[in-house]
Amino acid sequence: MANAVKPSEGAEAVRVPVSELRAFIARALESVGLPAKDADRVGELMAEADARGSEGHGVFRLPMYVKRIQSGGMNKHPQMRLLREQAASALLDGDDGMGHLVMSRAAEIAIDKARKAGVAWVGARNSNHAGPAHLYARMPLAHDMIGLYIAVGSANHLPPWGGIEMLLSTNPIAIAIPGLRRPPIVLDMATTNAAYGKVKVKAQRGETMPEGWMMTREGKPLTNPKRAGEGFLLPIGGPKGYGLALMFGLLAGTLNGAAFGKNVVDFNADSKTKTNTGHLIVAVNIAAFADVREFKQSVDGIWDEMKSSPKLPGVDEIRLPGERSEAIHVDRTANGVPVSRELRQALDQLADRLGVRRL
Amino acid sequence: MANAVKPSEGAEAVRVPVSELRAFIARALESVGLPAKDADRVGELMAEADARGSEGHGVFRLPMYVKRIQSGGMNKHPQMRLLREQAASALLDGDDGMGHLVMSRAAEIAIDKARKAGVAWVGARNSNHAGPAHLYARMPLAHDMIGLYIAVGSANHLPPWGGIEMLLSTNPIAIAIPGLRRPPIVLDMATTNAAYGKVKVKAQRGETMPEGWMMTREGKPLTNPKRAGEGFLLPIGGPKGYGLALMFGLLAGTLNGAAFGKNVVDFNADSKTKTNTGHLIVAVNIAAFADVREFKQSVDGIWDEMKSSPKLPGVDEIRLPGERSEAIHVDRTANGVPVSRELRQALDQLADRLGVRRL
Repeated sequence: MANAVKPSEGAEAVRVPVSELRAFIARALESVGLPAKDADRVGELMAEADARGSEGHGVFRLPMYVKRIQSGGMNKHPQMRLLREQAASALLDGDDGMGHLVMSRAAEIAIDKARKAGVAWVGARNSNHAGPAHLYARMPLAHDMIGLYIAVGSANHLPPWGGIEMLLSTNPIAIAIPGLRRPPIVLDMATTNAAYGKVKVKAQRGETMPEGWMMTREGKPLTNPKRAGEGFLLPIGGPKGYGLALMFGLLAGTLNGAAFGKNVVDFNADSKTKTNTGHLIVAVNIAAFADVREFKQSVDGIWDEMKSSPKLPGVDEIRLPGERSEAIHVDRTANGVPVSRELRQALDQLADRLGVRRL
Repeated sequence: MANAVKPSEGAEAVRVPVSELRAFIARALESVGLPAKDADRVGELMAEADARGSEGHGVFRLPMYVKRIQSGGMNKHPQMRLLREQAASALLDGDDGMGHLVMSRAAEIAIDKARKAGVAWVGARNSNHAGPAHLYARMPLAHDMIGLYIAVGSANHLPPWGGIEMLLSTNPIAIAIPGLRRPPIVLDMATTNAAYGKVKVKAQRGETMPEGWMMTREGKPLTNPKRAGEGFLLPIGGPKGYGLALMFGLLAGTLNGAAFGKNVVDFNADSKTKTNTGHLIVAVNIAAFADVREFKQSVDGIWDEMKSSPKLPGVDEIRLPGERSEAIHVDRTANGVPVSRELRQALDQLADRLGVRRL
């Protein structure tokens, strides 16, 4: 079942209800051995990624996840366990399970601990790619908490500042802060000017990249996305973005005993080697600092203050972080997620190969 | 007493021992009514700022701090108190005391709580400018902890992305992570491409700013630092730096009931109005996540991995965050802090006016 095509998404994109997307992902994952409950949870989160406009981290990734599961690079029956635990902290061993499951568990633990301790910080090791960062930063919101999530990216595309060896990933951060009547303010950003996925999209479309996205090993601007393999991404603010990527890697990787630096496995190129992906989530209980309702009203006030402030010539609208994602979510929850013809074909092939009903 | 001048710092800069700088700051502050113990603590931290190369946040600020104290904008006898407290969190009311004192107390509380809870997050309101961010992020290091500090800057120089009204400050973040044999890795950065202090230095020197530092209200690059009042700073990575400045303001300001957005007082222009400055500090007890020695060795390993990696043409050295500051600290601890003739004159005038012994 699919809704009418929106012209803006091209003649080929057909809308699919979020619930169908979720169910399809779940049956594909169950067919390769995930327990039904786990398959459904991953389906829910991957479909939410698509529903919120993070298409590069949604169902698009399903064939790769399936391949990794079938290659033995991800554990279908992880026995997650807490290696260390204090009132406001925990270290979770994901036992090579899907990142979505590991970080769902980590978020639950953080929320539970923050309820009593005010704040909690949970790190994870032996995890995997978990989709978009904001999914996990959002989890504390429903509990009147602020969420903060940091991860070691799943492939290195960034050298240290002044270097040419790609020892760092785009190590993202997401922070989610709830409003009362306005949507939550949700920042989700890589520490590079462009995420690598954006480079891939430019290459697919035959477009040129703006200067500042990538650089060659000789230090020259690299604008042809088809030559991306000859260079590397550039960090935001030069040495500052390098510094953030480094610190985030030490916090989400090294501190948790997870991979960071040379020992990061490129999960695009290698579907067998365990990645030992590291992430961290922090939950901040608003009630430990403020009256919850008053705080949310103040956040609305900041939203309105930014939104109504005067604009540069040619600028239509000032946006808050997460505002675009919220509008997409409203639209796609009502009208479905656009699935391009190419993606549909790939998913149909996957379904046929796995012997499950197509999307 | 002053050591020999280093040619690199100009004929006018004379070296002053850190201990003398500290004592001078302390006696100036004591002369305007701070208790001796508080005056000494502020002197210690301000001299440390100079000793670590953060000259824009050291003794240079003393005349302004004195003016604010004398104008009643800062409380000489703050009665700090915890407004809220849980096992891993606290909200400290600084009672308009000097920011250095408020954040020293906040760091102590965070360290104490993190020892038991694994992690602790302490917010502060009714505080003041506290000098460089890294001072506070460094405090947990001696306790085998990681430090993270965020502040609402003390003057708005940044509009929301696409806007022209300066509703945001350069809201900085500092993160400090200890090594074993290598120096700690310490990131201290504004969320703008240039801190406002750098613009002032360019203006003093009659130099041009590079494009990317500032923009006019018409959206054109602003490169003449003497016209800085006609434009505003630009955030790192465009909308990303705006997003970081916004989230940091909500976390360090709004959550703590401190100023953020329109209600930030420009402490350069106004020395009377209470600023209600907000900050936050997080202490992460390494032992809650890892074996401390092994972790520090891993941090050394990452240091060496970055440091020894191949470089871009024309690059002499790959630096780690905090490396430059560490080298400066070693030099200045041994040889003193360079004090320019202009600064010396300003400090001599201040000393004479306050009736205290000159530096």
